[in-house]
Amino acid sequence: MSGRLITLEGGEGAGKSTVLAHVQQQLAAAGVVPLLTREPGGTSAGEAIRQLLLDPAYRGLCAESELLLMFAARAQLVREVIRPALGAGRWVLSDRFTDASFAYQGGGRGQPIERIADLEHWAADDLRPDLTLLLDLPVAQGLARAGARGAADRIEQEQADFFERVRTAYRARAAAQPQRFRLIDASQPLSAVLQQVAAAIDAFLQRSLPA
Amino acid sequence: MSGRLITLEGGEGAGKSTVLAHVQQQLAAAGVVPLLTREPGGTSAGEAIRQLLLDPAYRGLCAESELLLMFAARAQLVREVIRPALGAGRWVLSDRFTDASFAYQGGGRGQPIERIADLEHWAADDLRPDLTLLLDLPVAQGLARAGARGAADRIEQEQADFFERVRTAYRARAAAQPQRFRLIDASQPLSAVLQQVAAAIDAFLQRSLPA
Repeated sequence: MSGRLITLEGGEGAGKSTVLAHVQQQLAAAGVVPLLTREPGGTSAGEAIRQLLLDPAYRGLCAESELLLMFAARAQLVREVIRPALGAGRWVLSDRFTDASFAYQGGGRGQPIERIADLEHWAADDLRPDLTLLLDLPVAQGLARAGARGAADRIEQEQADFFERVRTAYRARAAAQPQRFRLIDASQPLSAVLQQVAAAIDAFLQRSLPA
Repeated sequence: MSGRLITLEGGEGAGKSTVLAHVQQQLAAAGVVPLLTREPGGTSAGEAIRQLLLDPAYRGLCAESELLLMFAARAQLVREVIRPALGAGRWVLSDRFTDASFAYQGGGRGQPIERIADLEHWAADDLRPDLTLLLDLPVAQGLARAGARGAADRIEQEQADFFERVRTAYRARAAAQPQRFRLIDASQPLSAVLQQVAAAIDAFLQRSLPA
């Protein structure tokens, strides 16, 4: 059986970490122990790039540089970790992937979609997730939750209208690719969110695993 | 008067640092105090990217990631430093610029020329040097000189055939754009190299400065 790439996407305070842990358990219970990774990061070079991207000291980083750094980390992650794992039949569960660049650097920063799609093509080796869970919730609610966590990184320091554009871009992608995306209403109580996630993962397992 | 961008290019051990110091003095003597910068680097984010690019710990960095990191540093340098300086009428003298990506990531690593040209267009804001001095010398001679300097960085650790491809790509660019490039025979004794450089700078000053 070949591997599968499942990605988790969502704005600030959407509850990605909690959901990620539950998805990992659910997959393991079904006999699929996934390789966990995250973006930006997931390799030694990628984690160094992540530090740079999130460091509030680089507040003046231009949008082009941010986009290129995201794909520099992704290019390495795809080639060093994800492609080899999928090739060996492993499932990979990633905390964010290319959809985040369409949402943050595209929607948020205004970088052209065609530019990001071109980078996805050659830098990310045209790798697309098999399933993407988008944790969606109103920006104000997400920021209130994220704010309770303490010091904000460079991107978390953006203003509400930035995150509105990020959310709009995420939702547009989910609407355009319904076969791959599962939109999760993350404004619900946690138990309802996890139930919706579990149902999506269960359905995906049904169609992915041999009967 | 508008500013000018002069770049210095060349392989390992070509004597860029010495030449750079002399060019700086010559320009200053003509009343043009240039802004000095270098690639990759030249901004706080860019210098952090430079560290990452040269660190032998990231030996497994893929060619795509290396190219993207080079342009991430360059995008920031162009917008934060070079464009504003040129706009204010300053001359800028850069130790390497986009030609180095065509030579190292293109010739050396085999990244397609069209990909690099596309990045030059949008990431480097289509900025081209007004004059480029290419310090050219046989690879073996350059490596012998560079080797005498001590610990090699990640790129300096490449093999001779890599540097042969870099040299070939550099020379091809110089041959294709003779109006911008001045090919300097860096295999000559230093005094002769500096004389050739001085003549090139002098000619450029003649056609750039008001009579």
